[in-house]
Amino acid sequence: MHNTFEIKTNGPGLYEFTEAVRSWVIGTGVVTLFVQHTSCSLLVQENADPEVQTDLRNLFERLVPPSTDPSMRYLTHTYEGPDDMPAHIKAALLPVSLSIPVIEGRLALGTWQGIYLFEHRNRPHLRSIAGCMQNTA
Amino acid sequence: MHNTFEIKTNGPGLYEFTEAVRSWVIGTGVVTLFVQHTSCSLLVQENADPEVQTDLRNLFERLVPPSTDPSMRYLTHTYEGPDDMPAHIKAALLPVSLSIPVIEGRLALGTWQGIYLFEHRNRPHLRSIAGCMQNTA
Amino acid sequence: MHNTFEIKTNGPGLYEFTEAVRSWVIGTGVVTLFVQHTSCSLLVQENADPEVQTDLRNLFERLVPPSTDPSMRYLTHTYEGPDDMPAHIKAALLPVSLSIPVIEGRLALGTWQGIYLFEHRNRPHLRSIAGCMQNTA
Repeated sequence: MHNTFEIKTNGPGLYEFTEAVRSWVIGTGVVTLFVQHTSCSLLVQENADPEVQTDLRNLFERLVPPSTDPSMRYLTHTYEGPDDMPAHIKAALLPVSLSIPVIEGRLALGTWQGIYLFEHRNRPHLRSIAGCMQNTA
Repeated sequence: MHNTFEIKTNGPGLYEFTEAVRSWVIGTGVVTLFVQHTSCSLLVQENADPEVQTDLRNLFERLVPPSTDPSMRYLTHTYEGPDDMPAHIKAALLPVSLSIPVIEGRLALGTWQGIYLFEHRNRPHLRSIAGCMQNTA
Repeated sequence: MHNTFEIKTNGPGLYEFTEAVRSWVIGTGVVTLFVQHTSCSLLVQENADPEVQTDLRNLFERLVPPSTDPSMRYLTHTYEGPDDMPAHIKAALLPVSLSIPVIEGRLALGTWQGIYLFEHRNRPHLRSIAGCMQNTA
């Protein structure tokens, strides 16, 4: 069983879509999520305190600053904007695919875990995530 | 076929559980492992020289120091202790799920690969990893 | 359905093998790829502009310099060469496994996505990637 999850983004940060996945999975097996872009990521993270999401966004902004930053002047792929190559780097450091067990229709997430799209680009985007629910016999 | 692997941890570092997975998988297909927490990770790494594990722990301690470190003073999620938000960051940088092919009952691991839980918190924890063995026809 | 993809490498950088996977997958389901080494990685990245691949290689070289670099002198696993422990660290930061949906024989990749082996060692290597194609009913 396949699906495509679409998420509209407005700048860097985490966009939760746990409920869209939760209400779609069925039976027992594994759900696979795969983000079809190279400048955003998937992430499983704490869904309780929104400060965690702010801190994550700020950490990655410091770890991989814009290509206009003096520390990043060795970058060559800069013509799509100062946020483009750093977005590819963040996409390399964070998951492109997730595999989550499903038991009797329920995602095997921990109590505080949510599923997020992590947007790395500044401009608004429409992002697509391919999903596949595989049921075991 | 589903299972939950439980691991007791006593501070940051790698805890191997390859044998628990190896003795549980069966037939031919894929085993999925998913850690149900946001402050520890899964990792496949070298199981030969324990220095590799020490170096990995020290690298991540330097890459993401405690929130009391001057370089981390922009963090806001600090009330659960100086090791808490850095643990979430490390959990974002390292795998939450692993998918490993299984052929006739054997994990398709390389010669030097072991499966680890990477604990990022200081205090003792009991960690749960959801596992699903999917057999192909 | 299982397979092993073999890739010869000649130093650090990205080696694309999208076509080998594309021509092998069949039907509808999920393909799992798992690299059987601890000093190279899998990666899904942009396949349009080769500058992206150059920048990624240079970024990781700066993020994790050779163990002879003064900033890395705390490393202890150094007897296999100055590129060895940094290779393990990069392998921890980048994917060891990928799960990609397949729909009617086609990989659910985005327009600009390619599948790469990311080599972290200096000397030539022959690398193996275990693949499993799981078809849903």
